Amino acid sequence: MKRTDKHPWTATIIAVALMAALCATAVLAAAPDDSAAGDAAPAKTAAKDTRTLGIVLYPRFELLDVYGPAEMFGNVTGKLKVVMVAQKAGSVASAQGPRVVAEYGFDDCPPLDLVLVPGGFGTLTEVNNPAMLQWLRERAEKAEIMMSVCSGSAILAKAGLLDGRRATSNKQYFNLAVAQGPKVDWIKKARWVDDGNRVTSSGVSAGMDMALHVIERLYGTKTAETIADAAEYQWHRDADNDPFARFAK
Amino acid sequence: MKRTDKHPWTATIIAVALMAALCATAVLAAAPDDSAAGDAAPAKTAAKDTRTLGIVLYPRFELLDVYGPAEMFGNVTGKLKVVMVAQKAGSVASAQGPRVVAEYGFDDCPPLDLVLVPGGFGTLTEVNNPAMLQWLRERAEKAEIMMSVCSGSAILAKAGLLDGRRATSNKQYFNLAVAQGPKVDWIKKARWVDDGNRVTSSGVSAGMDMALHVIERLYGTKTAETIADAAEYQWHRDADNDPFARFAK
Repeated sequence: MKRTDKHPWTATIIAVALMAALCATAVLAAAPDDSAAGDAAPAKTAAKDTRTLGIVLYPRFELLDVYGPAEMFGNVTGKLKVVMVAQKAGSVASAQGPRVVAEYGFDDCPPLDLVLVPGGFGTLTEVNNPAMLQWLRERAEKAEIMMSVCSGSAILAKAGLLDGRRATSNKQYFNLAVAQGPKVDWIKKARWVDDGNRVTSSGVSAGMDMALHVIERLYGTKTAETIADAAEYQWHRDADNDPFARFAK
Repeated sequence: MKRTDKHPWTATIIAVALMAALCATAVLAAAPDDSAAGDAAPAKTAAKDTRTLGIVLYPRFELLDVYGPAEMFGNVTGKLKVVMVAQKAGSVASAQGPRVVAEYGFDDCPPLDLVLVPGGFGTLTEVNNPAMLQWLRERAEKAEIMMSVCSGSAILAKAGLLDGRRATSNKQYFNLAVAQGPKVDWIKKARWVDDGNRVTSSGVSAGMDMALHVIERLYGTKTAETIADAAEYQWHRDADNDPFARFAK
């Protein structure tokens, strides 16, 4: 009997460990590929070796707005760290109930290269939260890209961070975003909108497509495709293909 | 000047509150629609008014394996509660880094109608964790449906809970699952596999498609479609359409 027949589990462990190592290597080895950036802003920052992405949590945030992008960004192995931040560090309850952990508060959050603001019913509170709006304004001064998913763009808009910019939002609550940013060029039919250092996505699931787009912009097409394939995710690569625009009021 | 011109935000709050109420009502009002169950097992449990879904967390679980389904199940408003459970209550670190909260431990977890086991690199540890395997066996005795996403099926298989059943798993680590369950009828080309009280999905993103399928089976097509549309998610409704099967070793 062959060794592999006697120890199928040991063999599998070794095989899987090798596959994991190979997979991580593939992601790490993917060179930035600016030719893939399409209509994105100039990739002036593509050479940056390591980045920190801060995802902003608040009570009643939408789960997939956060963890769809966190899945994608979190798998840019070795080049990008994802941290969760809230007004106060500790556990935060989502709109769907489950609680998660913000490891940093606004007062002790490290420098952030990328910031992502999710949506959810808590948006209605946060657009009137001066601490949130002020913290976002401060972080926007140094961040490479400020992102939002779903109604998170209403918060960025209320902070004045989308004035004069092209942006989008959740389709079923599009008016909520529009009301917060009268000076924003709101795009109704878009899976996401890339306006350089502001990138906003439509509702919930679109955050994953936007995340892969930003990963492609910063780390190249191969890295984004490797991550999408590992997640068995059918990436919607056309920012203008938005079947949900029909829901916009 | 009209009142709405002077107070656009107040008007928006009222409008959004009304929309939220309408949306929730739509989900609640959707009657179970067994005709939509396709090849699913008989919907003997469709009449159940409230259910609790327990999602099992463990160190190095994959974020989207958990929060993709949690997004979908968590929006079955008023009829389904989602709780997070781990061997010990408290915070649990994901494979991507961010930590989340398990509100229950194995010892104080309430009765569960539905159980979902995610995948992730932690699978390699959990297939050899007697406490996990025993807890799953105990819960399977009373649960309506035991589910898994991604390599979570390797854990269900190791617990013996898929013996003689049709099941699937993450494609890039398919052999890991197969090694844990020699008595399982493993299906390589499937987005998910419904075998009655065992429903398993392929890698990561497929968990959302499986979740919507189970929601359709338990609560009807309209409820599942309303939830998918609210998440702006393009639900892959054909369980056999699996473009990632090409990755299976």
